[in-house]
Amino acid sequence: MLDSLALLKRGVSEILVEKELEEKLAQNRPLRIKAGFDPTAPDLHLGHTVLINKLRHFQDLGHEVQFLIGDFTSLIGDPSGKNLTRQPLTREAIQENAKTYSEQVFKILDQKKTSVLFNSTWMEDKSAANMIELASLSTVARMLERDDFHKRYTTGAPIAIHEFLYPLLQGYDSVQMQSDVELGGTDQKFNLLMGRELQKHFGQSPQVVMMMPLLEGLDGVKKMSKSLGNYIGIDEAPDIMFGKIMSLSDDLMWRYFELLSFKSNTEIEALKTAVKEGMNPRDVKFLLGEEIVARFHDEDAGKQAQENFVKQFQQNKIPDDIPEVTLEAPEGLAIGTLLKQANLVASTSEALRMIKAGAVRIEGERVEDPKQLIAAGTTHVYQVGKRKFSKVTLA
Amino acid sequence: MLDSLALLKRGVSEILVEKELEEKLAQNRPLRIKAGFDPTAPDLHLGHTVLINKLRHFQDLGHEVQFLIGDFTSLIGDPSGKNLTRQPLTREAIQENAKTYSEQVFKILDQKKTSVLFNSTWMEDKSAANMIELASLSTVARMLERDDFHKRYTTGAPIAIHEFLYPLLQGYDSVQMQSDVELGGTDQKFNLLMGRELQKHFGQSPQVVMMMPLLEGLDGVKKMSKSLGNYIGIDEAPDIMFGKIMSLSDDLMWRYFELLSFKSNTEIEALKTAVKEGMNPRDVKFLLGEEIVARFHDEDAGKQAQENFVKQFQQNKIPDDIPEVTLEAPEGLAIGTLLKQANLVASTSEALRMIKAGAVRIEGERVEDPKQLIAAGTTHVYQVGKRKFSKVTLA
Repeated sequence: MLDSLALLKRGVSEILVEKELEEKLAQNRPLRIKAGFDPTAPDLHLGHTVLINKLRHFQDLGHEVQFLIGDFTSLIGDPSGKNLTRQPLTREAIQENAKTYSEQVFKILDQKKTSVLFNSTWMEDKSAANMIELASLSTVARMLERDDFHKRYTTGAPIAIHEFLYPLLQGYDSVQMQSDVELGGTDQKFNLLMGRELQKHFGQSPQVVMMMPLLEGLDGVKKMSKSLGNYIGIDEAPDIMFGKIMSLSDDLMWRYFELLSFKSNTEIEALKTAVKEGMNPRDVKFLLGEEIVARFHDEDAGKQAQENFVKQFQQNKIPDDIPEVTLEAPEGLAIGTLLKQANLVASTSEALRMIKAGAVRIEGERVEDPKQLIAAGTTHVYQVGKRKFSKVTLA
Repeated sequence: MLDSLALLKRGVSEILVEKELEEKLAQNRPLRIKAGFDPTAPDLHLGHTVLINKLRHFQDLGHEVQFLIGDFTSLIGDPSGKNLTRQPLTREAIQENAKTYSEQVFKILDQKKTSVLFNSTWMEDKSAANMIELASLSTVARMLERDDFHKRYTTGAPIAIHEFLYPLLQGYDSVQMQSDVELGGTDQKFNLLMGRELQKHFGQSPQVVMMMPLLEGLDGVKKMSKSLGNYIGIDEAPDIMFGKIMSLSDDLMWRYFELLSFKSNTEIEALKTAVKEGMNPRDVKFLLGEEIVARFHDEDAGKQAQENFVKQFQQNKIPDDIPEVTLEAPEGLAIGTLLKQANLVASTSEALRMIKAGAVRIEGERVEDPKQLIAAGTTHVYQVGKRKFSKVTLA
């Protein structure tokens, strides 16, 4: 029980109310764990899986996941941080997206313990009068407490009236689903709490609200996002996925363990201790890379990705002991001339041939332009073919 | 045409936009004149009829009245100036109220040129999604411009979200009804203008908005209202109705002519001139009283009410020339003793008998209490029976 709670709490930003979560867990029945997804963006990256992983933690403890696709609410679009209403999707597009979602999330979730629900199921038949009734359950002042609404109202950015209906609809979903717990991002706090309010109004025990943090991207600073380019897509090829994980800083690696790995807290602690005692962090990163690749491809792919990475790494490895050369070139040198003067090629025409063949690298980066000018005052490792290296300084 | 416009504009507080009204009138077709009524309060007084009279002006010029009963919007209750949501009415109560309404308003309106509509007709089948779409057509900032919403928001009084839907629904009624003109009270300005906005959104020519003032009650100061007791109910008995009109001040009489009479502007001007040239205002008030009583009862009732009033007036009239008496009574006198000393009765026992018979009056007011004490220092006209009068001063 204590271990379960520790697992469920791992990586979580905030729980409202933790005591109620403990009480619900103590009831020894499968809890209904809700998470809502927008049907518009089924192309997931690892950042999205933080929350899905948490759902999986619950499933591992015997609970049921309510995977809610907000096809009705997508008529509105959650206004959080957005000023514009989205175009409603066609029914076909929603079905197509839902299918893609399923394919993706069942790489993590246990299908047998997951109900995929659509809120159109209960909202489609509701009347305008029902909507009015629902709207009567909250106040304008309450809505304007929400950060983004407040900001938009005070800065004069328009808020369409129907945007106030979104939190109510999301909350009402919890009523219909009789959810025990709802997971969401920290930016969803307001909407998640609305679920509690409405459940109380309808005489239900209020859901526990569990907020997950946003995962930092590969840069370790900004949140993972496609548009920032710092993401790992769950559909990416094993080698790419593995390579991106290997590029993480050692600190960020532990954050990814916390939020993305299914290793137990105990296992992760053991790895941390091992690293402190001298284990190469690279080898721990291998474990993370293997686990993630195996999850989204398969175990063989995980192992293969690691092998490929090692091979590639050794291929591109710059030897520790290479000749150092200093050339007088106050105005810089063309790459061909440089390679000849450093004795890496016999002639500038051999240099051009090797560049065209893709066999010339500066600091491991392939040279593409045979006329590339190397500036005076620089020091770089130059490589021709697999074995010829020289560290050249232009003085 | 100019006369029509003058009649239509008579008594109106504000027209938006007057030029558009002129354009619509110039189209020489029956315009659709909308007025919305709440199904909760069918017990009309003359204050309510100001707007209905204006509808009648339009009918007299050949236009069609859309008498809208807001049975769907009564689910919400127009929040104007109210902080609480009304209890929704049952369908039976609404039908019953609608019937009472019809009975009352067809004393003024021409039934052949009136369509009685219920907004449930088009709203009942609307879905929650339709309601959301409608809600998307205005903004929170726009709603909070409305005086009462603004006041409530800034003072921290709650505004339920669904109250924001009311103006949208009222506006959408105009779209469904393709109204050319909507009449309403000055307190309805915001909702009336919403009709214009929504009609424009739906590609219609926007309705002209015509706001009627609130009629002052009998006191000439506060608006006519049942709860203030300064009203004339349209179901009141002819004599009561006539009497209340006769109690109006001469100034207020002209206001009532403007807002309640169907006499033409020219006729009213002629009456004003006549009064200036010496006609007794009482006789003009007779005309108003007769017209109003005739409208809500019948012509005979109007004439009869006037006759009864005159008779009553003469009965209660105090003669110009009555004896004056001064009695020494530094501590005041009981009414019976006073009547005897003033020679109005032969004995105090006769005085008591006359009081019990209701035949004793002070300043025309019947004395009820046979032990009433009259204070020293007062002067009053005392009357016993029909003909005995005395003006008595207690010194």
